[in-house]
Amino acid sequence: MANGIWITFEGGDGVGKTTQARLLQEWLEAEGRTVVRTREPGGSEVGRLVRDIVLHHRGDIVPRAEALLYAADRAQHISTVVRPALVRGDVVIQDRYLDSSVAYQGAGRVLDAHEVRALSLWAAEDALPDVTVLLDLDPAVARARLDADDKPFDRLEAEREDFHRRVRGAFLDLADADPDRFLVLDASLPPAALAEAVRARVGSTL
Amino acid sequence: MANGIWITFEGGDGVGKTTQARLLQEWLEAEGRTVVRTREPGGSEVGRLVRDIVLHHRGDIVPRAEALLYAADRAQHISTVVRPALVRGDVVIQDRYLDSSVAYQGAGRVLDAHEVRALSLWAAEDALPDVTVLLDLDPAVARARLDADDKPFDRLEAEREDFHRRVRGAFLDLADADPDRFLVLDASLPPAALAEAVRARVGSTL
Repeated sequence: MANGIWITFEGGDGVGKTTQARLLQEWLEAEGRTVVRTREPGGSEVGRLVRDIVLHHRGDIVPRAEALLYAADRAQHISTVVRPALVRGDVVIQDRYLDSSVAYQGAGRVLDAHEVRALSLWAAEDALPDVTVLLDLDPAVARARLDADDKPFDRLEAEREDFHRRVRGAFLDLADADPDRFLVLDASLPPAALAEAVRARVGSTL
Repeated sequence: MANGIWITFEGGDGVGKTTQARLLQEWLEAEGRTVVRTREPGGSEVGRLVRDIVLHHRGDIVPRAEALLYAADRAQHISTVVRPALVRGDVVIQDRYLDSSVAYQGAGRVLDAHEVRALSLWAAEDALPDVTVLLDLDPAVARARLDADDKPFDRLEAEREDFHRRVRGAFLDLADADPDRFLVLDASLPPAALAEAVRARVGSTL
């Protein structure tokens, strides 16, 4: 899509997406590139309104309506933020994209993950990133990072743990299915080492 | 879908949908049926929030995002309003449904009408009404009804006229493709005659 470069960061909460996105941005800007940092959901003005509906009415919104609202956010974001930036020749660094929708939906098992993927691709007119960095980490380690509190897991937490293991597996399956786009990194490595691996991959596309 | 009866009214603006929906409701209630009158978009609380976004940001929303927002409204409306009413055994009388989405989208020629139909069916889990009453009318006559002002058309109005002719044609094509569901009526007939035709058709499903 045009002359820019589009990089998405994927993985569960607590794996270090924000840190790596920031380090990549700093390096690219030092190299003289213009960087657009963005995210989904909520990367456009209309998207923020959609996100407000979903967050304020969570539980009252049926799964298909929620998936369609997120897809609407995606359509607006790709068309008004990502594509124009790429046409200008900028680098777009994005926190989460359709792989998150598919992985979380697949792990939750409410809607069919293939249908959710098809919906996202229709919304985005089939736009896929040049590089998707998957920061892969044992959910228990990610959780320990997010929550210093090391009390034993109760039943609800154990269920959550199981959910996050399924999310991790779904992300790895997506990466296996599209090795040209994905860069899978062991997110337990030091941030500087991860940043170097990301730079090596992104640098090869510059 | 369950034991209720679901009737949708379709057709352009000014063809008399509201009048016929009201007359049908009065008759059914006199027959002792419980009637739910509803509409799309905006037939649920979440749907009204979605509708507000679309109406207040019209022109800033890209076509796919708008179609997805309307589909989200549809998913929520069918799941939380229409299905529960039908399960209770009520009669649902609805102003506009997916045929409107397909006819207007097809006439506008921005998105593929088949894709819009597929999106709507996914949103609604393939729910289709028992009876769809299409009130068919020459757009010039409908316009005269809406607008007593009989000044000659300017260029923009002529374009609108052409658009509404395409909408009419699209509705008739949909009816041709699904004759079991559609009842097509000549909306230039007197309201009482139309109401009688609607009652005859709906009565046969009671």
